Amino acid sequence: MAYDDQNIFARILRGELPAIKVYEDEQVLAFMDIMPQADGHTLVIPKTPAVTLLDLPADAAAYTIQIVQKVAKAMEKALDAKGIVLMQLNGAAAGQTVPHIHFHLVPGSLHELGRHAVQMGDQEKIQALAEKIKAAL
Amino acid sequence: MAYDDQNIFARILRGELPAIKVYEDEQVLAFMDIMPQADGHTLVIPKTPAVTLLDLPADAAAYTIQIVQKVAKAMEKALDAKGIVLMQLNGAAAGQTVPHIHFHLVPGSLHELGRHAVQMGDQEKIQALAEKIKAAL
Repeated sequence: MAYDDQNIFARILRGELPAIKVYEDEQVLAFMDIMPQADGHTLVIPKTPAVTLLDLPADAAAYTIQIVQKVAKAMEKALDAKGIVLMQLNGAAAGQTVPHIHFHLVPGSLHELGRHAVQMGDQEKIQALAEKIKAAL
Repeated sequence: MAYDDQNIFARILRGELPAIKVYEDEQVLAFMDIMPQADGHTLVIPKTPAVTLLDLPADAAAYTIQIVQKVAKAMEKALDAKGIVLMQLNGAAAGQTVPHIHFHLVPGSLHELGRHAVQMGDQEKIQALAEKIKAAL
């Protein structure tokens, strides 16, 4: 699938849209999901333009998953998360809503997650959770 | 969490229990989930003993995600999967049922998945799906 450089994550990466960031380096950005399925729901994205994991160059995948690990550990520590669900949806048919590859990290249980991308969260609360995660990174 | 080397995936890795394998190398094994949430549900596991992604050494994570990509591409091709859900549960509290880190690759939609690990699938059908995926690898 062709990459649409006007998707919201591409715009966040270019600084055209705001995001509550918890981690950033040259290759990867981690930021809070503004429609969280649970408190602390964080997204980790490679900066490489790719729609799905299937399109992503192997080296970018290898690097990104290490940042996913790092953020997951910070979430566990900062939020005292007992469980962490990692989810990554490939293709609109899978439920992917933004066509730039993203890894979801959601504290809690798979069986108790809210539905994907349906309701705006409380931005102040999300900001406070982000500060906690950042502090643990 | 301490690693229990009697968990079923450790036993599969040692050849003590059978599995319908689609890919294996020195570091990683991919095999069919025998309680599939959708047709073609495949698991990818590093051979490194680790309970969750948080415990897994970074180099093993980096290598495993590249095999996840390879298997996902084969699934897309072999099964004509329109969407692929990647899921990886960390901790019993998240819904993890086997305490050896595993990546789920499930063709289809997040919103139409069957429940995790509840019902045995038709083993002949699973074997046939595995052959298709193997042929596309």
